[in-house]
Amino acid sequence: MRIFVDAMGGDFAPQAPVAGAIEALRRFPQIDITLAGDLSQVEPLLVDCDDVRSRITLVDAPEVITNEESPVMGVRRKTRSATVIGMLMLRNKEVDGFVSAGSTGAVMAGGMFRLGRIPGIERPALAPLMPNGKGHFLLIDCGANVDCQPHFLQQFGLLGDAYMKGVMGMEKPRVGLINIGAEAEKGNALVKATYPLMEQAPYHFVGNVEARDITGDVADVLVADGFCGNLVLKFMEGVAGTLMGIIKKEMMADLRGKIAGLIGKPAFRRVKKLMDYTEVGGAPLLGVQGAVVKAHGSSNGHALSCAIAQVIKMIEGDVVGIIEKGVAEMLPADQQA
Amino acid sequence: MRIFVDAMGGDFAPQAPVAGAIEALRRFPQIDITLAGDLSQVEPLLVDCDDVRSRITLVDAPEVITNEESPVMGVRRKTRSATVIGMLMLRNKEVDGFVSAGSTGAVMAGGMFRLGRIPGIERPALAPLMPNGKGHFLLIDCGANVDCQPHFLQQFGLLGDAYMKGVMGMEKPRVGLINIGAEAEKGNALVKATYPLMEQAPYHFVGNVEARDITGDVADVLVADGFCGNLVLKFMEGVAGTLMGIIKKEMMADLRGKIAGLIGKPAFRRVKKLMDYTEVGGAPLLGVQGAVVKAHGSSNGHALSCAIAQVIKMIEGDVVGIIEKGVAEMLPADQQA
Repeated sequence: MRIFVDAMGGDFAPQAPVAGAIEALRRFPQIDITLAGDLSQVEPLLVDCDDVRSRITLVDAPEVITNEESPVMGVRRKTRSATVIGMLMLRNKEVDGFVSAGSTGAVMAGGMFRLGRIPGIERPALAPLMPNGKGHFLLIDCGANVDCQPHFLQQFGLLGDAYMKGVMGMEKPRVGLINIGAEAEKGNALVKATYPLMEQAPYHFVGNVEARDITGDVADVLVADGFCGNLVLKFMEGVAGTLMGIIKKEMMADLRGKIAGLIGKPAFRRVKKLMDYTEVGGAPLLGVQGAVVKAHGSSNGHALSCAIAQVIKMIEGDVVGIIEKGVAEMLPADQQA
Repeated sequence: MRIFVDAMGGDFAPQAPVAGAIEALRRFPQIDITLAGDLSQVEPLLVDCDDVRSRITLVDAPEVITNEESPVMGVRRKTRSATVIGMLMLRNKEVDGFVSAGSTGAVMAGGMFRLGRIPGIERPALAPLMPNGKGHFLLIDCGANVDCQPHFLQQFGLLGDAYMKGVMGMEKPRVGLINIGAEAEKGNALVKATYPLMEQAPYHFVGNVEARDITGDVADVLVADGFCGNLVLKFMEGVAGTLMGIIKKEMMADLRGKIAGLIGKPAFRRVKKLMDYTEVGGAPLLGVQGAVVKAHGSSNGHALSCAIAQVIKMIEGDVVGIIEKGVAEMLPADQQA
């Protein structure tokens, strides 16, 4: 199994992606890695890795699509970027999976226009796994598609269902629709029109999920348009950060609190680990014709190795195949090829 | 100053509203209260309040608009409900303010169709004050208007601005637009079209606010359509609850954590108080021709007295007058009467 790793993506590139690749090669004997980037920067980092060096193939990709430029233009113009090279290699089956901590827009655009969508899927979506204290739920879409139509959301459910089956080994993932009320007739025009479509879809639709229940382990896949999904993703981070800040401040406010904080440190550390995204890896880009994971921009080496672990699971669990089968079930007979 | 209190609204009616009214009369010597409800239930509760009894006027309102029925139909049919009676009394200046912990939809519909909108305001909005650890921000709209047009959002900014000026005494509240990115060109079609309208509005627009910064004290008024606003409102509750639950569980997991929890109790209690909605009161309904506060359905007596305190501040701060002035500034000359 061969995984493509973008060595130039993310806040700590190329150090973090290279370190992540080496860690992953040691963790997973079944893989080889194609490492693409500016070789003058990447090669010097390949030290102390003689044990896995033979399983690394280097590809020169001196261009980088940054967060500041238009992703679509970047993908069109920067043909020597790791994003474009990797997506084309994935399309040509030269690699089996793709991991990048670079520009989200570039990964999306590369997936859409260089790798290509799964036939029948209208909008690929980014779907991070989010912690809820007990385990994780998949949030789809988290920002790729800000203006959606009802059948996009119906398909997001299918994509999420396939991921949870293939990667998490769930038999019957619970798919919920994020809404402002539990009843079928609640919501804005978009979700009201989506509800009956999800009822007809070939997955286990559990109905509307109110925002206060998102972290309540009532669904494994939570569907929203990219605008609302992004709100949920980032607000969770914000509220958790604010609350932990308040707790810290109140504990530091007097001696008694300080002592409690000191004694409670291991418990707080466990809480932090439970809420930590780096253990999960990254967000899969679902709906494209290959296994693609977008790692968090601030990923360190370990987080990148976890993203590589995730793409391995996507390949082994045949997520793309499950989606293809689901699409065939969902499309009306006259639209099937 | 006379405040109308719906004695039949909320999960703990009529006990909580009656207790809240009595508490408020003791806290605020400048007010009288009109208490409306099923008098056979309300009157027996007026015990041990001889000190304020003469400042209470009872009004018989035997009907209740429940959460289960259509608010618009409820307001139309149940003319003997406290909601309808109170809104008409407010319209006729028989009372100066209105407080209810009853059906949100009924308060909205009553405000729209019995009390009436401020001329020029298209959509009244519910706007709870939310804690951010340092103080509060006003979230507008939190669910009344799920499908919005850009100029509704522009007006929400005006409504929130007036509240923060009149009630919180702010000179120049910072008004932000909830979005998925900080840049002006980010977002879905709605917020992209809203941005330039808010730039032109007669309040201090500070631009887009990403969800991770909502609780970061970067704006005093945060504008969103009612669908997204409701997500934010309820997700905050959900995440905070989940996180506190995880912390509790991890602290109870070993002896060390248990001891820390015990010693840290006062600090945790302060955190809880900081995040507590009952101290704030309720959500003002802004854009209607009078001071209206919708208290949380689960309000106890103290929370209801805080909601009464809030409506007093709205009256004293002339929030309705400030909105009227703002509308006049905002409307193009040809639309002004």
